[in-house]
Order: sequence, then C-alpha cells, then structure tokens
Amino acid sequence: MIDSLSDRTRFDLEGIEVTPAARTETVNLLAMHESRRTSNGDEVSADYERAIITAARSAPTSSNLQAYSILVVRDPARRSRLAKLVGDQRYVEQAPLFLVFCADIYRLRLVCERQGHAFAADNLEMFLLASIDAALCMQNALTAAESLGLGGVPIGSVRNDPEGVATELALPNGVVATVGLAISWPSGSGRGPKPRLPDSATVHPEQYSTEGLVEAIEEYDSTMIAREVYRNRQVGLRSGQEQLPANKYGWSEHTARRCSDPGALGPASLREHLREQVQQRGFGLR
Amino acid sequence: MIDSLSDRTRFDLEGIEVTPAARTETVNLLAMHESRRTSNGDEVSADYERAIITAARSAPTSSNLQAYSILVVRDPARRSRLAKLVGDQRYVEQAPLFLVFCADIYRLRLVCERQGHAFAADNLEMFLLASIDAALCMQNALTAAESLGLGGVPIGSVRNDPEGVATELALPNGVVATVGLAISWPSGSGRGPKPRLPDSATVHPEQYSTEGLVEAIEEYDSTMIAREVYRNRQVGLRSGQEQLPANKYGWSEHTARRCSDPGALGPASLREHLREQVQQRGFGLR
Repeated sequence: MIDSLSDRTRFDLEGIEVTPAARTETVNLLAMHESRRTSNGDEVSADYERAIITAARSAPTSSNLQAYSILVVRDPARRSRLAKLVGDQRYVEQAPLFLVFCADIYRLRLVCERQGHAFAADNLEMFLLASIDAALCMQNALTAAESLGLGGVPIGSVRNDPEGVATELALPNGVVATVGLAISWPSGSGRGPKPRLPDSATVHPEQYSTEGLVEAIEEYDSTMIAREVYRNRQVGLRSGQEQLPANKYGWSEHTARRCSDPGALGPASLREHLREQVQQRGFGLR
Repeated sequence: MIDSLSDRTRFDLEGIEVTPAARTETVNLLAMHESRRTSNGDEVSADYERAIITAARSAPTSSNLQAYSILVVRDPARRSRLAKLVGDQRYVEQAPLFLVFCADIYRLRLVCERQGHAFAADNLEMFLLASIDAALCMQNALTAAESLGLGGVPIGSVRNDPEGVATELALPNGVVATVGLAISWPSGSGRGPKPRLPDSATVHPEQYSTEGLVEAIEEYDSTMIAREVYRNRQVGLRSGQEQLPANKYGWSEHTARRCSDPGALGPASLREHLREQVQQRGFGLR
C-alpha cells in the first residue's frame, strides 16, 4: 500500500525506484522520517504511550539480556529541568512525552548476585551491547510514534551531563542514559526527509570502497547548500571560526567543524568526559 | 488497521490493552518481531534490497554526521567465511542477504582533512555515536524486511573478531563492524514474539524504581521455564557449570552465567578484547 503522503519519501527525494510491492506502508513510513521539532501542544494519550512502549519492548535484544531501561517522563517541571540538562533544547520542554533510553547493567549485576555468579562483564563490550539494546528500543518507539501521526526527535544530548540526568531520573549505579526521544503532535507540515549522503558513500556491495567518495561528498555539499540547511547555523563563530559565504559552507565544513575543535561548540560539544562519566555510572570499560 | 496475524503480537502475548487506533499496521508489525533463523532458500530480490537499504538510510543520525556504513554481502563464499568468523552461525551462511552495519569515522576524518580542521573526536562519545547510528540503521532495515514478509536475525557476534571481519570486508582504518543482520525468507511459522521481562522491570514512570523487581524477575524465570526456552542450552556445562533441572534454570541463571565466567562461553563470549580491537580499528576511546 502506498499512502497519500508517499510523495514525500526518500524514494521520491532521491529518485530511487522500486516496485510497488517493495513499498509497504511501513517501508514508506520509514522513508518519510524527519525530526519534528515543533509541538502543537496537545497531549499524547496513555493509550498511544502504551502502544509506543510495547513496540519499543519488542525490539531485538542481544542474547535476550534486555540490558536497557526506559524512563517515561511526563511531569512538566522534570521535562523543563531535563531540557536544560540536555542543552536547553526547547522541544524537550514542549514535547509532552519524553522517553529516556538507558544502558542498564544494574539488573544484570543483581541477577548475578542472586544466582551466586561473579559479574565479569565490566568491559567495553557490555557497555556497547547495552547501548545498542537501548538504541534499538528508541528506534522502534520512534517508528511506532510516527505511525500514529506523532513526531519524534532523538536526543543524543542526554549524554551531555550523565550525572545530572541520572540524579533527575534517580538512576542507580549501573544505569546511564544514552539517548532520549521527545514525542509530540507536530505543528506544521515539516520539510520532508533530509537529504543524506549519496548511497555510494555509505552503502558498499561486498566490500568497502572509497571510489567516488570525494565526488559523492561534493555532490552532497551542493545539495545541502541549495537547501540552505546551514543558514544561521555556522559552527564556532564565537570561538574564532570564520563566517563563510553560504555557498562555501556545506555538510563538509559543518561536519569538520563539529569533529574538530571541542571549544567551537561549547564544553559539551564532543562530550569529552563521557568515558569517565560512564565509568562513574558503574560501567567498567576494560 | 489490524492485520490477520495480529493475534501473534506482544499485545496478545502479554495481555496489553490499547485501542484499535493505537494499533497501526506498523505498531502491530513491530510487536510481532521475532528472530527467524531458518531460511527457505529463496533469493531476496534486488528490488526488496533497495527498499530495505533506503529504509535503513532514512534512520535518524546524530547531528547528521552519518557515522556509519552498510556492507551488503550476497556472495555465498564470503557469507560462508563470515559465518565462521561470527561463531559458525548457520543462518548467516544460509541467509541470502547479509548486511553488516559499521561504526564509521573514516569519512569524518577525510572530511576534516579536506576542510583543514584537525579531527579531535577520537573519544568514547564518537565511537558510541557511530555505533548508535549504525544500530538505528539496522533496526530500520529489520523493520522494513519484516514488513516485506522477510525474516531477520541481528548478529552481534560480528564483534567476535573485528579484525577478521574488517579484512573480509576490506574495511579501512576508522571502520568497525558493530552489528549484522541476516535476512532470508523464513521457513515455517515461528513461535511468535519472545516473552520479555515484565514492563515493571524495564519501564519506569518519571524515575527509576526497583520496587517489585525481584518479583518481576522471578515471574519471568517461570515464564521462560514454562516455554522451555533453555532446553539443551544451559551455559558453561563444558567448563564446569552444573547441569540444573529444567525447572531451576530460567532467565536469571542463563543470564548470570553469560555475564560471569568468560571461560563458560568460550573465548569470544564476553568479547574481552573489544576495547583493544576497536582502538586497533582506528577509534580513539579517550
């Protein structure tokens, strides 16, 4: 089935042709994703929340360890405090439903203790496994929300201040917030999906290839410049980066600035202290 | 819309009641997920592959950095070699389409170099960000595949031998496989979604709570024992763990054994060397 909004999918944006059979309602929905940052103020019902959470809990989990927890935040005062902790993102405050997905080994430690086995998974693998578990839940929650007509914005900046977020959410040692999801009824109609790097840059048949990569990046820079994605969003101007003419500032420059000088984006930019903070939260990373 | 198979969703399994409006076709699909490990041998068309990859590329990506790559493996000889590298999982060899999702900072480093900025994101945050990007793509690919009637199995054990997988897939420095997805036309009908911990254990309104956690775990142990999930799957028998009566071996014991003695599961079990291996692949983790 192709629904009425299917002219705003990535298939159309990029001219990707597939048969109608390949475009299930769900495939079209996924290909329509865009972050929706403006709420119309309406509540999200407990009914819809239950559907979203059930979808999240249905995501795969590595070895069925279920090394994640989901915090469901509705209290406006708490959302307001969290919005400040994650870099004053207004839509976290405005979205009536804010989910926080956490890597969780508190439960695994407890289970080891109760069964009389010594917990030995205090390593990078377990932190990664738990973070992936949490991420898969988040993506299912986002997909479920969008299928209900809601908008969602993933919030990586719950990692800006792990200890502050943990205090606000009463997370025990062994639990760290890795990604959030602000859910609201969107106002306005959005711009449609954001262009991505040409698939030749990110998708590799059989083996990784860098052939044509520079050309793909240059093409993408042009696309993003033409779309004016970075208007008034040049990175690091206050810390000495040059203001470039709009036609010189594409994905490459924006991305390079984000990945370089930690000062350019303020202290939380590259989350320089995440390793110590995650260890502080009870994850060994050996 | 509730489709004909909606009696095999997590809603039904757990008796979760929501209104029909909350059960979109996509919500039902997500709530029906189960790993399908047997292939009927049929090919997956290039058409369906294109739809799956487009869905994957439509997932959110942190700050639009697109710090992932997707390897599309169809060559039977390569799938066979990869199946051995990931712990001899037969369904990797049998699934006609094997996707490998990688954390990728090769491209970000290149972009920094071309723009004349020094790459400074050689820290845990960037590895985590890239791994989450890759995981979100994987989850979208899985959802798209399932909407097409295909079955998928996420393969975390691409992390068993990062260097071996990198060699097989010609991954450059700065790229590491974090999760795979074996896609096939399933044979048989499956068992329906696997029971999860009661939501009281994993979902927390407003703040984390451990109230009732032990009871929830005990309830889940009983559920999994009744379902005979661990029949002939007790962990660590060859390394000295006791064979327990089936009614004493539930999720708790299985999980505790997996999280404890690294020897119990063989050398790759807890992926003890992942930190060094990821660093070897070009990720700073400071």
